[in-house]
Amino acid sequence: MLPQLTILAPGLLGASVARAARARNLAQRIVIWSRGAETRLALADQPWCDAVAATPETAVLGASLVVIAAPVDQIVSLARQIAAHLPQGAIVTDVGSVKNEIAHLGAAALGERAHFVGAHPMAGSEKTGWQHSSAELFQQRPCFVTPLTTTAPAATAAVVKFWHDLGAQPVTVAPKQHDEIVAHISHLPQILASTLCAFLAERDTSWRDYAGGGLRDTTRIAASDPQLWRTILEQNHKEILRAVQQYQAELSAFQKALAEGDYATVVDHLKRGQVYRRDFRPAP
Amino acid sequence: MLPQLTILAPGLLGASVARAARARNLAQRIVIWSRGAETRLALADQPWCDAVAATPETAVLGASLVVIAAPVDQIVSLARQIAAHLPQGAIVTDVGSVKNEIAHLGAAALGERAHFVGAHPMAGSEKTGWQHSSAELFQQRPCFVTPLTTTAPAATAAVVKFWHDLGAQPVTVAPKQHDEIVAHISHLPQILASTLCAFLAERDTSWRDYAGGGLRDTTRIAASDPQLWRTILEQNHKEILRAVQQYQAELSAFQKALAEGDYATVVDHLKRGQVYRRDFRPAP
Repeated sequence: MLPQLTILAPGLLGASVARAARARNLAQRIVIWSRGAETRLALADQPWCDAVAATPETAVLGASLVVIAAPVDQIVSLARQIAAHLPQGAIVTDVGSVKNEIAHLGAAALGERAHFVGAHPMAGSEKTGWQHSSAELFQQRPCFVTPLTTTAPAATAAVVKFWHDLGAQPVTVAPKQHDEIVAHISHLPQILASTLCAFLAERDTSWRDYAGGGLRDTTRIAASDPQLWRTILEQNHKEILRAVQQYQAELSAFQKALAEGDYATVVDHLKRGQVYRRDFRPAP
Repeated sequence: MLPQLTILAPGLLGASVARAARARNLAQRIVIWSRGAETRLALADQPWCDAVAATPETAVLGASLVVIAAPVDQIVSLARQIAAHLPQGAIVTDVGSVKNEIAHLGAAALGERAHFVGAHPMAGSEKTGWQHSSAELFQQRPCFVTPLTTTAPAATAAVVKFWHDLGAQPVTVAPKQHDEIVAHISHLPQILASTLCAFLAERDTSWRDYAGGGLRDTTRIAASDPQLWRTILEQNHKEILRAVQQYQAELSAFQKALAEGDYATVVDHLKRGQVYRRDFRPAP
């Protein structure tokens, strides 16, 4: 059991880490820092929060493991802010959706004092905020753990174990490879869904009321927080632009086949999609 | 109550009509014709099927209402096949996903003898076949009813009432307008989901195992039957091509903003999508 788990800036994911850690008895003490004084007051009342701290620096005093749960554009600056206050040998992880920049700058920020091992649980919701958190959020969900080649293996192992104990299925990959993967399986779908909604918003919006489950499901994630996604898209824009461009080429090829009445190609395209989707892992 | 409801070529939708009609006591007698002799044997055992017929012509004898539940490319030919065998004044509807061609040719096929009033319930599933049917499939689902300007108002009213009684929410629109609407809210999402899967199938397919709920939901409909969709895409290719082209323009504009680091435009795009999605009707 961890003597002290500290969570910085919990939203949906960070608070779910706290809930899951408490439910699974992973930490003797859970300390939380949140930027807002009102949020700190509310968190102090939760059974999965043993103490709130007024600053990140005081929150990490005595912590064996720190989870930085802030948006991707604030993770590195929080790592820098806490670096000098961490116990020697402490381990720091995060939940950011983009990893390459954070993995390198996070490790640099902590220097020799502590270990930064980035993580990205593939769990979440179009709903944000700690109020929507759940002890079961990570259950059977993949969680990327993204050490550098220079990361101490014991630190990586500790972070892998932590996410495993929270219920997730850890997958260790290099940060750059992570960013390529999520550009395809997470960021591209987000852009397609948001673009579909932005496009339909310009047509007759009453059409929305006639939609079946197909449009509902394909666009669910378009309800996600634009500011949160802005930072993700910014940090991973190179990989994303490549994925969008290749997707556009695939869509244009389909469009061409349909325009030319080449239904053999149309059906082949649909079939390739069907086969891929059929072998999807079962829903958790 | 209808003295006799006849359903031709039931799959998921047609069998759900039969189940819902029986559950809601809408017809004294339900007669079904299916192309396959084995399917007819299996259907004859169902409590929502009072008789099976060996041919479409005999199935419609004595029918007050006929539902042609075949794929879109077979609806008109079935209408022609049964025309001379329908009772005078009978009403024929269908469940096809494309309406303009079917509405005109269906009405022409029946001539003065009977009334063709096309319909398209926005219910379904990536699963097909009568075995997946459900009496609740149409519950609170929109159902387009697409009369021509020349259709007898009483026939339209009867078809509207029928779908209403099955649990659906009928919406009367002109067939051509229907096709424009579904090109946007149904056919375009299908193409985007299939194309996303076809594209990801060409990358490392193990990435699929790391996906969260976002990719799962955005691609669910890609598991749909390619042959079924081929006929839908073929019948509505003009409206669909227009919608795909306009979607491509929207996606290119987003791509350009991201490439240029114009995050004001990026966020505006995400926000427009979010607002549209937020006002979606609640799930049934």
